[in-house]
Amino acid sequence: MFISFEGIDGCGKSTQARLLADHLVATGQTVLRSREPGGSAGAEAIRSLLVEGDPGRWSPVTELLLYNAARRDNLERRLLPALARGDWVVSDRWTDSTRVYQATRGGERHVVDALQDLVIGREPDLTFVIDMDPDQALRRGLARDHDEDRFEQLGLEFQRLVRSGYLGLAKDYPDRIRVIDGAAEPDVVAARVRAHLP
Amino acid sequence: MFISFEGIDGCGKSTQARLLADHLVATGQTVLRSREPGGSAGAEAIRSLLVEGDPGRWSPVTELLLYNAARRDNLERRLLPALARGDWVVSDRWTDSTRVYQATRGGERHVVDALQDLVIGREPDLTFVIDMDPDQALRRGLARDHDEDRFEQLGLEFQRLVRSGYLGLAKDYPDRIRVIDGAAEPDVVAARVRAHLP
Repeated sequence: MFISFEGIDGCGKSTQARLLADHLVATGQTVLRSREPGGSAGAEAIRSLLVEGDPGRWSPVTELLLYNAARRDNLERRLLPALARGDWVVSDRWTDSTRVYQATRGGERHVVDALQDLVIGREPDLTFVIDMDPDQALRRGLARDHDEDRFEQLGLEFQRLVRSGYLGLAKDYPDRIRVIDGAAEPDVVAARVRAHLP
Repeated sequence: MFISFEGIDGCGKSTQARLLADHLVATGQTVLRSREPGGSAGAEAIRSLLVEGDPGRWSPVTELLLYNAARRDNLERRLLPALARGDWVVSDRWTDSTRVYQATRGGERHVVDALQDLVIGREPDLTFVIDMDPDQALRRGLARDHDEDRFEQLGLEFQRLVRSGYLGLAKDYPDRIRVIDGAAEPDVVAARVRAHLP
């Protein structure tokens, strides 16, 4: 089963992806954890182009192509082989991130969906959107010590648009996407996530 | 006017692109020279992912996405502004390279064309295929001193397929593509190219 975690920067989705993977491993499952963009060696090389540098470094369409290149590499080299073995895959972001972030930055949604159909194909079986107030999440994101702060630099208004994008997406894909209230201690949020497992 | 040069590795197309640009400048035109993948700062960063490393580093579709990302960046940041100013653009390769190389390596041609329509759009106004016997061209390519030898490593049979691909493409686009016999001294080939200018 292929599970993705989504949400605005600083919402705690990476922590939740880790906690779900820990839970699955503790119940005897084999779990491949992944992150987007990244995962495979090639995708990590592309990731460094995407997450470093000035927010205006790439145009929306160029950025979209780079995300799809990283995703395709990770899918072919790591995710599909793991799913074929019957393992679980838990990914920090997938195409929903692209739908929301690129559309918010001016990339046309029809290009996002056309690329997904053309070169990716695979959607997660289940997606958790960790929902959180952008003011609170942005403060958490900025507090982290890393260089990958390109999205955080885009500011609060941007994060509000992203949150709104995710909530809209949850309505577009009601069978796949579950919106989880992320405003609680990580263990509490993790229990909310686990309640939706089959 | 937007002019591209195409052909197998080592056919002399880079030299011919330079000689044509020199000729245009000598007649008072403003010329932007470009190369594929590359050109803009972003495209050059993507280029380094594409031309270095093992031939199997990227799958055909991932490679296709990276080429399109570099092309889009170069197009938006450099080529379209130059063409809008009325300058000439002379590019060492464009989408025809992708059509031929990726199709030869197993990338599906319909994906190449769908990406061209979706995210690039622009074709050159005139394309010169510098045609040459692959045995002769491969020896020239291997003799060059550079690290960007990924295509050369793919060997003679590959170059034969590429040449055949270019000749087929010239039949698909008879109004745009001119096949130039490249088996002569550079100045002789350059004169053959210039004879096709409007």
